[in-house]
Amino acid sequence: MAFQLSPGSFAPGARVGILGGGQLGRMLAMAAAGLGLKAHIFAPEPDSPAFDVCVEKTVAAYEDEAALAFFAANVDVITYEFENVPARTAALLSDLCLVRPSAAALAACQDRLVEKEFLADIGIPTAAYMRVDDAGSMARAVAQLGRPSILKTRRFGYDGKGQVLVREGADLAVTFRSLGGGPAILEAIVPFAKEVSVVAARGADGAFAAYDVCENRHENHILKVTRAPARISPGTAAEAVELTRAIAEALDYVGVIAVEMFVVEQAGGGEQLRVNEIAPRVHNSGHWTLDGSATSQFEQHIRAIVGWPLGATWRHGETVEMENLIGEEVFGFERVLREPGASLHLYGKAEARAGRKMGHVTRVAPGHKA
Amino acid sequence: MAFQLSPGSFAPGARVGILGGGQLGRMLAMAAAGLGLKAHIFAPEPDSPAFDVCVEKTVAAYEDEAALAFFAANVDVITYEFENVPARTAALLSDLCLVRPSAAALAACQDRLVEKEFLADIGIPTAAYMRVDDAGSMARAVAQLGRPSILKTRRFGYDGKGQVLVREGADLAVTFRSLGGGPAILEAIVPFAKEVSVVAARGADGAFAAYDVCENRHENHILKVTRAPARISPGTAAEAVELTRAIAEALDYVGVIAVEMFVVEQAGGGEQLRVNEIAPRVHNSGHWTLDGSATSQFEQHIRAIVGWPLGATWRHGETVEMENLIGEEVFGFERVLREPGASLHLYGKAEARAGRKMGHVTRVAPGHKA
Repeated sequence: MAFQLSPGSFAPGARVGILGGGQLGRMLAMAAAGLGLKAHIFAPEPDSPAFDVCVEKTVAAYEDEAALAFFAANVDVITYEFENVPARTAALLSDLCLVRPSAAALAACQDRLVEKEFLADIGIPTAAYMRVDDAGSMARAVAQLGRPSILKTRRFGYDGKGQVLVREGADLAVTFRSLGGGPAILEAIVPFAKEVSVVAARGADGAFAAYDVCENRHENHILKVTRAPARISPGTAAEAVELTRAIAEALDYVGVIAVEMFVVEQAGGGEQLRVNEIAPRVHNSGHWTLDGSATSQFEQHIRAIVGWPLGATWRHGETVEMENLIGEEVFGFERVLREPGASLHLYGKAEARAGRKMGHVTRVAPGHKA
Repeated sequence: MAFQLSPGSFAPGARVGILGGGQLGRMLAMAAAGLGLKAHIFAPEPDSPAFDVCVEKTVAAYEDEAALAFFAANVDVITYEFENVPARTAALLSDLCLVRPSAAALAACQDRLVEKEFLADIGIPTAAYMRVDDAGSMARAVAQLGRPSILKTRRFGYDGKGQVLVREGADLAVTFRSLGGGPAILEAIVPFAKEVSVVAARGADGAFAAYDVCENRHENHILKVTRAPARISPGTAAEAVELTRAIAEALDYVGVIAVEMFVVEQAGGGEQLRVNEIAPRVHNSGHWTLDGSATSQFEQHIRAIVGWPLGATWRHGETVEMENLIGEEVFGFERVLREPGASLHLYGKAEARAGRKMGHVTRVAPGHKA
């Protein structure tokens, strides 16, 4: 006898390669282990948190082609925990191994201009934006979009890094150079009432499953609290899921995807959505699913990339709240342990630097929804 | 700044040593990682499932004193996933490191005769039993307890191994020798209506927290299904928990403990409990807590041994069912993945031998209790 498998799917015991060794890679590796799969982490930092929970590790730079070839030869499918995988790395791995989500999906999400153009192509609303390559295009963009507006590097931004507010009176050439003077985009300010996100998955068979839309509160540009479900109208929530489905289908996506959106309240009542960012990976705003849903986003991503059926995405509890423990906040972890029903997750990071995500807490409010 | 810790407790990053590399060690290691702790697994089998998810491993025999000394020097606290840790191993480790639960608690639970005498001493009802050391004491025991009765080796029994039914007409000397002729115990048959178990934890501070009493169904002497809560009267359930608390306190226990009991229906109505076996560890009948409780038994055990507060033990769902996937049953895993809301756990074992526990499924029925 042997495992009964659907076409194209892997058997338990298959080797899942994960690029990136942070907390997302760590939680993906644990989810893989829970399903009887073997995680192999590829990351450059020798003290990567994900190394604590994997079967095999490769410590090498993302540009180390020999190490990438060894990695690809020793796993059955490759995924990643971050969108800034160099294009050449993704291309090289894709030649040698199945990569999910695909290098094309990755490419669409790692450059803010490409991402906005992709969204415009499929008719999905975003903030107004203009391409900025030099002081001249910067001046034209500001003339068009007004002030305040936001200048963002096209690549490598996260947690508010790589962006600057363009204020009244600011010197435009100085502002442009303050971000390094590389390819950038200027975005109009969206006067949003709420920031929400949709975490969803698309299976290798095209099946789609979204978690409840959740709302996010940032502090110092870092996600602080996620609450599910978002306090928006049912119609807006359904539309948010449909936008996410459209994005996933247009990208022929396999795996978990997260779409951040702004909710703008209309003058005449009603809510309008504008997509802010796509993350081609598991997402901080989906951590609540570890304790608050039938299937965690990490398990869901692993199911998708090995070709298994997606799991149920229903929510436990009337509401679920996730709070990040940032920097020295982690030192008070015992208070969380004493809080009845709070679930503590720590990432095993040695040093509690300012702004560093050290762990999170989930609180599932009683009341079951199924 | 630094971690705010209660006296005697360890900080995140502490190293948890686990003796034994099977599925219990594996799930303990994952729980430790979830709390930011580092798991070090000590096990003799090079392909131990727990090696997939630990920071460090020692592959050595339980009698290898140099390896044990290295292990003890490299961890902050030691625990185990099985009760058959050799006494000398436990003593040696206890001299070098904090061991939880203690070697004394372990000793009380690894010999069926010692265990029964301990229970009798603290006034806890069990099946009638007699010590059997040779053919003579065997004959006397059978004369006393009647037939059918059950002969069990005093040590190393599990999943029905190390026991034999003493039938009418069976040759007693042959029966005694069939179990190896070593120290044994004869137990009277308990005409039970149900087998239940209590999985509970006692903290380093003496706090006690039990999960709902659950009922167990065995097939071929191997646990097949656990259901929480057990269908017994509230009074019987409360008594089962109190018996467990008494046992844990008498052992000055730290960690998760499981107590298996028989429920006997009285002629005049009502239910009576008889303790069958104590497991000084996490237990198969507590696997449902991974998906069906606020805190899993694995996290609870880790919290206890590092001196952290115990977590909430309430149940999600009106009922929770856990089904073991034994041997070739695992080959049908995809059916489980397709079942809405079923949670699949696979242990990463390469070979699906008959009678081997390969994984389990949890089903949480809607309806939340908090």
